[in-house]
Amino acid sequence: MDAENIVIKKIAILGGTGKEGKGLAYRWAKAGYQIIIGSRNKEKADVAVFELKGILGNQFEITGATNPEAAQAGDVVVMTVPFGVHKEMLESLKPYVAGKIFIDVSVPLVPPKVTKVQMPAAGSAAQEAQQILGENAQVVSAFQNISYEHLLNDKELECDVLVCGSGKPARMIALELVKAAGLVGWDAGPLENSVVVEGLTSVLIGLNKQFGVQAAGIRITGIPRPK
Amino acid sequence: MDAENIVIKKIAILGGTGKEGKGLAYRWAKAGYQIIIGSRNKEKADVAVFELKGILGNQFEITGATNPEAAQAGDVVVMTVPFGVHKEMLESLKPYVAGKIFIDVSVPLVPPKVTKVQMPAAGSAAQEAQQILGENAQVVSAFQNISYEHLLNDKELECDVLVCGSGKPARMIALELVKAAGLVGWDAGPLENSVVVEGLTSVLIGLNKQFGVQAAGIRITGIPRPK
Repeated sequence: MDAENIVIKKIAILGGTGKEGKGLAYRWAKAGYQIIIGSRNKEKADVAVFELKGILGNQFEITGATNPEAAQAGDVVVMTVPFGVHKEMLESLKPYVAGKIFIDVSVPLVPPKVTKVQMPAAGSAAQEAQQILGENAQVVSAFQNISYEHLLNDKELECDVLVCGSGKPARMIALELVKAAGLVGWDAGPLENSVVVEGLTSVLIGLNKQFGVQAAGIRITGIPRPK
Repeated sequence: MDAENIVIKKIAILGGTGKEGKGLAYRWAKAGYQIIIGSRNKEKADVAVFELKGILGNQFEITGATNPEAAQAGDVVVMTVPFGVHKEMLESLKPYVAGKIFIDVSVPLVPPKVTKVQMPAAGSAAQEAQQILGENAQVVSAFQNISYEHLLNDKELECDVLVCGSGKPARMIALELVKAAGLVGWDAGPLENSVVVEGLTSVLIGLNKQFGVQAAGIRITGIPRPK
């Protein structure tokens, strides 16, 4: 795969019926991408499509599919599922994502101590994804720190997105999608760095609890902000 | 040890002859704390004291000592040393820090790939410190993301400080010292979360390189900023 020559038109969002997935679908559809919402259950995917079209209007290209169908159809595959099904989902998706950029939005929260960083044996959810999918897919991690409450509208978000991944070209493509979603993204380096970004979600949940808020986030400082 | 009843007057800064250590000493001395600069070599510590008094004036209580002497004298012990000597320093300090709060500023950077997160077997530098010092010392980690260039003056810093540590009372004391240094600090949870903050330094160094700056930092958003 040569990430530099990939043109992204169709974005598959697996686990796209959840709040995070719908929020990303909303923003990317508005930015002109074709969206395929994937779910275990095609009917659930169709319900999410119906909801999104209700908000956005029927002119937008959003379709529903099973997760494997969605993965096959997408130029890029985005996965947003609870960590409890992370491994299982990845194993079932492996045949369908070869040669693709795979954006993992998962955060390895382990209840009940979700404010304590607890990474899987691979080092992070993103590294676990790369281990399972193999070298043929390029795993990138992103969007783990964004509160889903703030995606399904057009408000400016106060939280930056840190993008980690194997290979600069794959990170650049993910950063394009971050920008298309109306967010500010930063190249946070190799996939090994994903532990920082995933773990930051536990820190932010802890701060939400301490301060009784829902939207603690982070911003990179000391660098002129990109437009 | 009962961290809630500890009153901090004397701060020992081990490895205090480095830029980070001197910067913290400068800010805490101005805030009214007695400072003991520790070094392997008492003469080097005295040189740092001389430099600091040259900037601050002779009325400030700053003295030099060997690291063990400094550790014994401090109400709280702060260590800022290169990661290469982290383990060895901790082992030599163990007899002198029992019952104290030990603030570890170390970042496990492993050259040449300092932009890639590479944690020690314990999980993070702070967890390694706790393992070596044992349960009798309370390890807190803080200040790992602050560029030392910005400490040795009175400018407002754009980078927040995330404080991790065993026990809320110990974190609260560290947060007091963060505030005394003129910085905004946040309780980032248990010591296990230190991997996030330590690893963030690698991400920030990567951003510094990408953008040709020296002071990439982070700020917590979505919560009213403390005064």
